[in-house]
Amino acid sequence: MVRGEFDQIARYFAPLAAGAPGAFGLRNDAAVLSPPPGEELVVTLDTLVEGVHFLPEDPPDLLARKALRVNLSDLAAMGARPLGYLLSTAWSSRIDDAWIEGFTNGLAADQKTFGLHLLGGDTVKTPGPLTLSITAFGSLPRGGALTRSGAKTGDGLYVSGRIGDGALGLLALRGALRHLSLSEQEQLEQAYRLPEPRCSLGPALIGLANACLDVSDGLLADAAHLAEESGLQVIIEAPAVPLSDAAQAALAEDPELFTQVLTGGDDYELAFAIPPVEEPKIAVLSQELGLSLTRVGRFAEGAGVLILDRGGRPLTLEVRGWTHF
Amino acid sequence: MVRGEFDQIARYFAPLAAGAPGAFGLRNDAAVLSPPPGEELVVTLDTLVEGVHFLPEDPPDLLARKALRVNLSDLAAMGARPLGYLLSTAWSSRIDDAWIEGFTNGLAADQKTFGLHLLGGDTVKTPGPLTLSITAFGSLPRGGALTRSGAKTGDGLYVSGRIGDGALGLLALRGALRHLSLSEQEQLEQAYRLPEPRCSLGPALIGLANACLDVSDGLLADAAHLAEESGLQVIIEAPAVPLSDAAQAALAEDPELFTQVLTGGDDYELAFAIPPVEEPKIAVLSQELGLSLTRVGRFAEGAGVLILDRGGRPLTLEVRGWTHF
Repeated sequence: MVRGEFDQIARYFAPLAAGAPGAFGLRNDAAVLSPPPGEELVVTLDTLVEGVHFLPEDPPDLLARKALRVNLSDLAAMGARPLGYLLSTAWSSRIDDAWIEGFTNGLAADQKTFGLHLLGGDTVKTPGPLTLSITAFGSLPRGGALTRSGAKTGDGLYVSGRIGDGALGLLALRGALRHLSLSEQEQLEQAYRLPEPRCSLGPALIGLANACLDVSDGLLADAAHLAEESGLQVIIEAPAVPLSDAAQAALAEDPELFTQVLTGGDDYELAFAIPPVEEPKIAVLSQELGLSLTRVGRFAEGAGVLILDRGGRPLTLEVRGWTHF
Repeated sequence: MVRGEFDQIARYFAPLAAGAPGAFGLRNDAAVLSPPPGEELVVTLDTLVEGVHFLPEDPPDLLARKALRVNLSDLAAMGARPLGYLLSTAWSSRIDDAWIEGFTNGLAADQKTFGLHLLGGDTVKTPGPLTLSITAFGSLPRGGALTRSGAKTGDGLYVSGRIGDGALGLLALRGALRHLSLSEQEQLEQAYRLPEPRCSLGPALIGLANACLDVSDGLLADAAHLAEESGLQVIIEAPAVPLSDAAQAALAEDPELFTQVLTGGDDYELAFAIPPVEEPKIAVLSQELGLSLTRVGRFAEGAGVLILDRGGRPLTLEVRGWTHF
């Protein structure tokens, strides 16, 4: 049984808007929102389709949290702190009250974790697959937005956290990494299902980083985006790419998986350009945040991506990440 | 043929973002947006699914414009002027470049008409029906937002424009109004396909209206929303409901169509509560805007909706508008 639209909103969604005065309890045509004084607003949108971006059997609470986190990662990439979000849901016929309850429980959990509220949205039915769209709002000091286009020659390329766990996690979920221990498989699966948006790191990079984005298409493709938008070449030192213990175990067995690590995407780590004069501050920031920040390469005159192996020799990869299509 | 995501964005969507500096040419993870000084932001979202909210054969340019206008109507209902929008598109397999070109041409036309820009969004593929979601941004003087909950006993209930043309237009498109002249049918169809959001009226009602919404579910259901949120009864005088010449012709043939007029929805006119002391200003405002503003009833102690016929006798309708589900 699925409730009517108004009943569903009152029961499952209005509680998510409690505490956000501009949401008017979801009973108006629109919501009111203001950035804090001296700040400007950042907006981003991600759309997820069942069977394309997630699987029908994905637990609804984890799906909800991942959908929200992917957007928070986009906000973090520009240096913004989260404020709130709008939710568009097109329910397929299989979605029942229990599913919606799990889904909204997941949203409630992450609203608490990341300090934001539901502000509004739209709920419709679809004869097709479940389709979700989240519009997230954040704010940052006026004029401070980090973009993809500011990297300079000589800047170091840094990444947060570990690279490749998300992509390897998807392989693990598909049963392709059975040679790993169960705990290693679970660790990778968790990274795929519930990425950690770098909401504290992004704002801390304002004034430090010359360019920034979040790694969603794979480090290779996203480093290429930074290089292209900045009119430079980016050089990645393959041995410097930070790997989790589980990823190292996977690669020890099958070194070819390094392609997945660099191109599989779903990392939701930040990749950013730091001018040499600011590089000493990155170690301090890493300690403050309790988050590893690793120099994996540098920007240089030229174009495209160059990957160097342990001996400094160029590596060639056949795949170049995916373009969503 | 459908282009890849990046190519498609560069060719069809980036031109829609030209002139909006915070959109960064659609090449970043998010967009930056600020309300003008002294104003706050209003955000709204509408999702449209092919086969549910529109038909596969609907012309893509008109569909684009209607999708945008429905959101502008929500902004107007709160008193906000449009600033920009985010677009989520889940393309079904039938969507080709020609369709996307028609769609973006429609957006371009209405961006010009209503003075706003595309700020960002997401473009994905779906194995299901075409699904569109628009998040629209507007702004209004801080604290000035019109809501549904402020109507007071004795306030007059007003509507803009004409009621029922949208609902009758859908009937005309289905061939159910063949007794009308071709020009009458076309006039009604046009009202359904391309509503006129009341972007000038909404902001002008700030400080005048005690409550406001846009009529999307039908005058009956939406007047009931105003009454319920304000804790009052609303009394509608049926003969006062403003009808176009084409609607009058339709009703002359089949008086039962009045139910469609009151409950069919898709009007996108504003319905608002005006205290008696402000009522003289409404005629002035109507002249200034060149838009008819009609008193169709009043708010009273109690609850629910009462509809009175020409003799002041209560009318009963079986249908109460639709709840989308």
